[in-house]
Amino acid sequence: MIAVTETRSAESLSPTDRSTIRRGAKRAVTDRAALWAILDAGLVCHLSTVVDGAPLVLPTGYGRDGDTLYLHGSTGALSLRTAAEGVEVCVAVTLLDGVVYARSVFHHSMNYRSAVIHGSARPVVEPSAKLRALRVLTEHMAPGSWEHAREPNAKELAATAVLAVDLAEAAVKVRTGGPVDDAEDVAANTAWAGVLPVRTVWGAPSPDDALAGAPVPEHVTRRARGR
Amino acid sequence: MIAVTETRSAESLSPTDRSTIRRGAKRAVTDRAALWAILDAGLVCHLSTVVDGAPLVLPTGYGRDGDTLYLHGSTGALSLRTAAEGVEVCVAVTLLDGVVYARSVFHHSMNYRSAVIHGSARPVVEPSAKLRALRVLTEHMAPGSWEHAREPNAKELAATAVLAVDLAEAAVKVRTGGPVDDAEDVAANTAWAGVLPVRTVWGAPSPDDALAGAPVPEHVTRRARGR
Repeated sequence: MIAVTETRSAESLSPTDRSTIRRGAKRAVTDRAALWAILDAGLVCHLSTVVDGAPLVLPTGYGRDGDTLYLHGSTGALSLRTAAEGVEVCVAVTLLDGVVYARSVFHHSMNYRSAVIHGSARPVVEPSAKLRALRVLTEHMAPGSWEHAREPNAKELAATAVLAVDLAEAAVKVRTGGPVDDAEDVAANTAWAGVLPVRTVWGAPSPDDALAGAPVPEHVTRRARGR
Repeated sequence: MIAVTETRSAESLSPTDRSTIRRGAKRAVTDRAALWAILDAGLVCHLSTVVDGAPLVLPTGYGRDGDTLYLHGSTGALSLRTAAEGVEVCVAVTLLDGVVYARSVFHHSMNYRSAVIHGSARPVVEPSAKLRALRVLTEHMAPGSWEHAREPNAKELAATAVLAVDLAEAAVKVRTGGPVDDAEDVAANTAWAGVLPVRTVWGAPSPDDALAGAPVPEHVTRRARGR
């Protein structure tokens, strides 16, 4: 949703074996601008950690500042407590763009843009750095809210955990376009094929009851109109 | 999107410590119908596994048959190869319903429905069971396609890995409604507060070029109209 205007970098995003895409390698995208664009367009990420040897994945908000991804939540949240110890995390942001109807069940697919980031999460504790990170997180979730709403006080700041993950290692995959059917199925011509697009849209702002009649501020209406 | 018509069960969904929701316990939902409704409304899940001690999370399609969750993909996919060995998985399905604008940055939030499932993935290899599971997966991704499109042949069946996870242990969380602001911020009345709804909508079917002019079948148009 936020346009990517930054200069593209040719630096590889997948420097190690685990983030090298094996399956569907033709869908792998290796430039940093593509990664940034996916992160900037998403609203929720899925944060995965290992807890007592078992996988745990939870949805959470995030924000991006250059090549740093910020994650936040209550200090009581299991995943963040774990990650704050410096353990490895894996973070996925997935944007679904359509369901691909093929002539065979086998070739049915989805159009999507996905980023899977591997890294170690470090806690952001220095107050001014934490405040900057919270601004990034807030402006990602609700652009304009940092200026409009009351900023965090010391107590709120202490109750919020912020984690930073470097965007150094990531696998980006994008699928677009129609089905890739077998020639025999195309020739048989017995089934419909195409794409049913999926989009995420904003609804009309729903003001809090205590505000009835107060105008909706521009930073909210702008987003509701699609920016 | 598919209406949940099954009888509700009072059976607990969170029998062990790891799936007991610590944070935001008031948002925890413990009935099975709520879990089923979230799974039936989602299109993509995030499958998390542990690979060489590190977390890995990937987006993938899924389907539900009663209390069994099916996942599929190429046998070459890293996460599925790992899971097929019987290791533990964690699967999240998240539906975002809105961004909650509060009078303070701290109380900004999101409205969502999420299900986080813990379990061990078992490969589905017996051909008739695998075919049934693929039907469930297909009908979840593209309802009506199993009857309409060509069914998998033996070669395609062999090239597809299907995993099953019992829906025995899950954490379901739902947040709805407006912001929960501090009384002082409500009294100050200096910021807008409310919800900006988010919805996932279908676009108009986009037929494959080779089909130009052929009518869009009813199972596709029905979904495009919102079922």
